[in-house]
Amino acid sequence: MFEEAKKSLGISDRDEMRKKIKPTDYKSLQERAAKEIAKLEGDLIIDTHAAIKTPYGYYPGMPSKVVETLNPDAIVVLEFRPEDILQRRLKDLQAAEGQRRIREVEAEEEVQEHQDVMREFAAAAANHVCCYLLRLKFMQPQKYPYQHAEEAASALADLVKKLKGMA
Amino acid sequence: MFEEAKKSLGISDRDEMRKKIKPTDYKSLQERAAKEIAKLEGDLIIDTHAAIKTPYGYYPGMPSKVVETLNPDAIVVLEFRPEDILQRRLKDLQAAEGQRRIREVEAEEEVQEHQDVMREFAAAAANHVCCYLLRLKFMQPQKYPYQHAEEAASALADLVKKLKGMA
Amino acid sequence: MFEEAKKSLGISDRDEMRKKIKPTDYKSLQERAAKEIAKLEGDLIIDTHAAIKTPYGYYPGMPSKVVETLNPDAIVVLEFRPEDILQRRLKDLQAAEGQRRIREVEAEEEVQEHQDVMREFAAAAANHVCCYLLRLKFMQPQKYPYQHAEEAASALADLVKKLKGMA
Repeated sequence: MFEEAKKSLGISDRDEMRKKIKPTDYKSLQERAAKEIAKLEGDLIIDTHAAIKTPYGYYPGMPSKVVETLNPDAIVVLEFRPEDILQRRLKDLQAAEGQRRIREVEAEEEVQEHQDVMREFAAAAANHVCCYLLRLKFMQPQKYPYQHAEEAASALADLVKKLKGMA
Repeated sequence: MFEEAKKSLGISDRDEMRKKIKPTDYKSLQERAAKEIAKLEGDLIIDTHAAIKTPYGYYPGMPSKVVETLNPDAIVVLEFRPEDILQRRLKDLQAAEGQRRIREVEAEEEVQEHQDVMREFAAAAANHVCCYLLRLKFMQPQKYPYQHAEEAASALADLVKKLKGMA
Repeated sequence: MFEEAKKSLGISDRDEMRKKIKPTDYKSLQERAAKEIAKLEGDLIIDTHAAIKTPYGYYPGMPSKVVETLNPDAIVVLEFRPEDILQRRLKDLQAAEGQRRIREVEAEEEVQEHQDVMREFAAAAANHVCCYLLRLKFMQPQKYPYQHAEEAASALADLVKKLKGMA
């Protein structure tokens, strides 16, 4: 999407993308990006959000038009415990801006809502184009760093292999 | 929809609408009403149900065709505690027909199911046309009369302002 | 679907269907079967899964294209307690292969997830074609054999009668 935004809207860095693009432009940017991605050959894994949290509400990352264009074999949903998601975000924030406090209780409910909408959007997208919907859940605390990331990567690799075996 | 029903089906009051209109007529009525609404200019807030409870099941208020025609910037979902919804309905009933008993426990589950389906339909609609989905939750008892209504109105006004700022 | 698979893919028994058909073939098989079913006259009840569990994830049984073709009056979702579903499957297994152990706790969560996805897919399908969505829940243990089946059948018969009365 950033590549498309540079070309068509003169956007020069990723931060400008969220701030300077009007919603109607964003929508057509999303659709153009999907068309470019759909042209790529080989096995593609697209890392995206099914629901993007904005001050206006949740914005679909895989709306009907986009998912029709991408025509995926499968949509994989990654689910984590809200507290684990908050921990990772906190780490990123600490790295970027120094330590700050977060009202954790409220925040956990919000993260849970984000995941609920994400799941509902992903289900709607999968049902629309008739592709597999795989839910990968990581509901136990990690026993070592990057355990969830490693297990998710291995489940993804396994899925790609299986789907290729079927084709 | 009532305006359309008067014109095309000779319906004369709102009560007749639910009783005398066949489902196929209802569907095309809904679509014609959406087309009329889509023609209106200015900032529009449509007050509707995403899921209408009927003796045949839940009927979608914003099915794919209708939401394509309306092409909203955002869908706002209002969520309340089942007991608060029941209280308001009870009040309306008491005002209309005098006091009556309601089997509350069973009823709360039913209200919760209605809200669940409403959320799922709204998510499907938002994902279909790629618009914002804002969930406004009022999960605390009101501290004064109409607190929820006032807060919802103010959140809606705020959203309209923000969306106009973006356009 | 089996009839279509015999004709077009030379499949000779139901077991072969799940094992020998490629996903792209499966999709077009599903769509052709829907077209054949849509031609049938009279009152039709289609017994199907909204979400089919496979090693690649959940596969939609009523994706947008299929449900557009079928154009149902209503989608009825049957919901049971995960432990009751497991009990029935266990019975089938015992009948087929002799007793075996099942890790019940894990399995109950998996059955719940399957039901959640099923509900989300069914809601997306109903919202897409604007038909009634009826949820029949059986959350109490059966008091006698086949109680749930009998009650579901009677609720279905009742719905068909009501919908015919409306048409």
